[in-house]
Amino acid sequence: MSMRPPLTPVIQALPVTVPFVGPEAQERERGKAFRARMGANESSFGPSPRVVARMAEAAAEMWKYCDPDNHELKVALARHLGLDVSNIVVGEGIDGLLNLVVRMYAREGTPVVTSLGAYPTFNFHVASVGARLVPVPFRDDKEDLEGLLAAVKREDAPIVYLSNPDNPMGSWWETPDLLGFIDALPETTMLVLDEAYGETAPASALPPVDVSRANLVRMRTFSKAYGLAGIRCGYAFGDAEVIANFEKVRNHYGVSRMAQIAGAEALADQAYLAEVVAKVAAGRDRIAAIARNNGLEPLPSATNFVTIDCGRDATFALAVMRYLLGRDVFIRKPMAPVLDRCIRVSVGLDHEIDIFAEELPKALAAARNS
Amino acid sequence: MSMRPPLTPVIQALPVTVPFVGPEAQERERGKAFRARMGANESSFGPSPRVVARMAEAAAEMWKYCDPDNHELKVALARHLGLDVSNIVVGEGIDGLLNLVVRMYAREGTPVVTSLGAYPTFNFHVASVGARLVPVPFRDDKEDLEGLLAAVKREDAPIVYLSNPDNPMGSWWETPDLLGFIDALPETTMLVLDEAYGETAPASALPPVDVSRANLVRMRTFSKAYGLAGIRCGYAFGDAEVIANFEKVRNHYGVSRMAQIAGAEALADQAYLAEVVAKVAAGRDRIAAIARNNGLEPLPSATNFVTIDCGRDATFALAVMRYLLGRDVFIRKPMAPVLDRCIRVSVGLDHEIDIFAEELPKALAAARNS
Repeated sequence: MSMRPPLTPVIQALPVTVPFVGPEAQERERGKAFRARMGANESSFGPSPRVVARMAEAAAEMWKYCDPDNHELKVALARHLGLDVSNIVVGEGIDGLLNLVVRMYAREGTPVVTSLGAYPTFNFHVASVGARLVPVPFRDDKEDLEGLLAAVKREDAPIVYLSNPDNPMGSWWETPDLLGFIDALPETTMLVLDEAYGETAPASALPPVDVSRANLVRMRTFSKAYGLAGIRCGYAFGDAEVIANFEKVRNHYGVSRMAQIAGAEALADQAYLAEVVAKVAAGRDRIAAIARNNGLEPLPSATNFVTIDCGRDATFALAVMRYLLGRDVFIRKPMAPVLDRCIRVSVGLDHEIDIFAEELPKALAAARNS
Repeated sequence: MSMRPPLTPVIQALPVTVPFVGPEAQERERGKAFRARMGANESSFGPSPRVVARMAEAAAEMWKYCDPDNHELKVALARHLGLDVSNIVVGEGIDGLLNLVVRMYAREGTPVVTSLGAYPTFNFHVASVGARLVPVPFRDDKEDLEGLLAAVKREDAPIVYLSNPDNPMGSWWETPDLLGFIDALPETTMLVLDEAYGETAPASALPPVDVSRANLVRMRTFSKAYGLAGIRCGYAFGDAEVIANFEKVRNHYGVSRMAQIAGAEALADQAYLAEVVAKVAAGRDRIAAIARNNGLEPLPSATNFVTIDCGRDATFALAVMRYLLGRDVFIRKPMAPVLDRCIRVSVGLDHEIDIFAEELPKALAAARNS
């Protein structure tokens, strides 16, 4: 038998896995398209028309490499946030930045604290360096700040991940609670605060921008309310020395020229963002009302999706989701214990929400009879 | 003094560095634009008009996440290469794929063999995992196959990097030499064969596509002849089990929807590619003639640039480059010993080559007088 180049022991031990199966893969398997795309927490309202026009115009210049400094986008972000460019790093979506922060602070055996059932891509990156994930269960459908803090201290963990508002439950903490959590963290623990859904959250869920702490890095994205999930552009901000360390590991030419251009233009059109945020709020209300009309409990949401408690166990919620998928309605559901009694429905366009309204009662009836 | 979250020892020890300073950064520093952009080995001829149109059309759908499987692009690549989709992985340019292959096979202290003065981004990724770079000097301005093989065996290295055609010298090996090298490699050494410039090379420089070896992964890109450097899209092909292992570490949503669309469309327009390749060849001839007219020796090139031996030492070549930069002509130069007697000039548009022709004699005169 022939020999092979040896993978590192950490990589050798990992399964070949995809953190999320995309809707396109499901459509290929099903052999037909979804009628309603309400599962990936995308912004069905699309990017600003200004951004679309700017991208179309920029297409012909894609022969040029991207600026590895992401300079113009960082200048725009710095102005937007009231920071210096040295406080900002741009990456290939928050996913790319999570990979970097994990590689910066974790290696084989390092304890890394997160919530059980929180963002799986973070866990994927933790596994890729052989670090040890310490998952803390949600409490009352929220990430458990006290539990996370206790785990950090018990494990002497150099990283803790918190998403606020969170996915998959849509819940959030208010600023005083967050600041209390941050204050209580050891100085030697980096809080990775994922604010992907920050734009759709109440202002009170976003602590003031403050880069004075060397153990806090906050991440935001153009993938959600800005409607640019497909362009791959996110950013992190924090203490300048922390941000500088990203230079040691990031793929300097990773963020495309198109992404840099689209991001800067999107940021410049805050009026459009405000419109989208209002539409998202209205969509959430509609989805919540549909849930209630069917005797289900929608959880409060600060995101662009609504998580719905189906009122029974995980098997039941899974049956509801499967029925909807079979009726060409793409949604997802939480999979961690307790959370898994729910389904998760992204705000879609009105005609998609209509389809959901029509199919949900049938899904519940089918699940009850199965 | 306050404490900070501890970086891993490997990251702590790294400098904060950017592998390449981009032309945009130079323009910002200079306060004015270059007249001729002939330094980044981009394709000044741009992407196919079909690709530009397709990108413009696709802009409005960028609210959707990219397909994490890169399925349609992989199907197109598989057809193009005569392979199965399981033999192909798509990444954020070859840069992104190099990062992955390094993380798969190297960790702290692992010997990794490359050529001294070869692609610095590869070295950057090697450093980011704390592996030990073993650089082998070029011989007669070519990557030294015998020297690389000897270093691999001496060090028992699990990875060796070879670019063919190579950057920064533009030289290449013919298929029989490459196959001899591949045959002689230990089965436990992965050859990372970077064929970024494959499209502009003679067919004889590209070994037949063959994925039967578990220790060979070949990488190609849409950044060069396809004119899509700014979109960030490259691919690797090889043994299906090797390719599957990329799933363990890659950023599944890293390649943008725009890149996947542009790449597939670019691949479909092989007539345009052929036109560009002909223009590149003509541009190389012009640049070579200009060098000769100035008493300099252009090196043979299978790439989209010409490396020119300035006939004296590194200081002289540096002075030539600096003069050209000062005259708004963006070029680069090799920096490793022996190679550093050269400057490197990418094929630009005709009017840019005119500017180069006008400025080169002045640059040489200035360098001789300095």
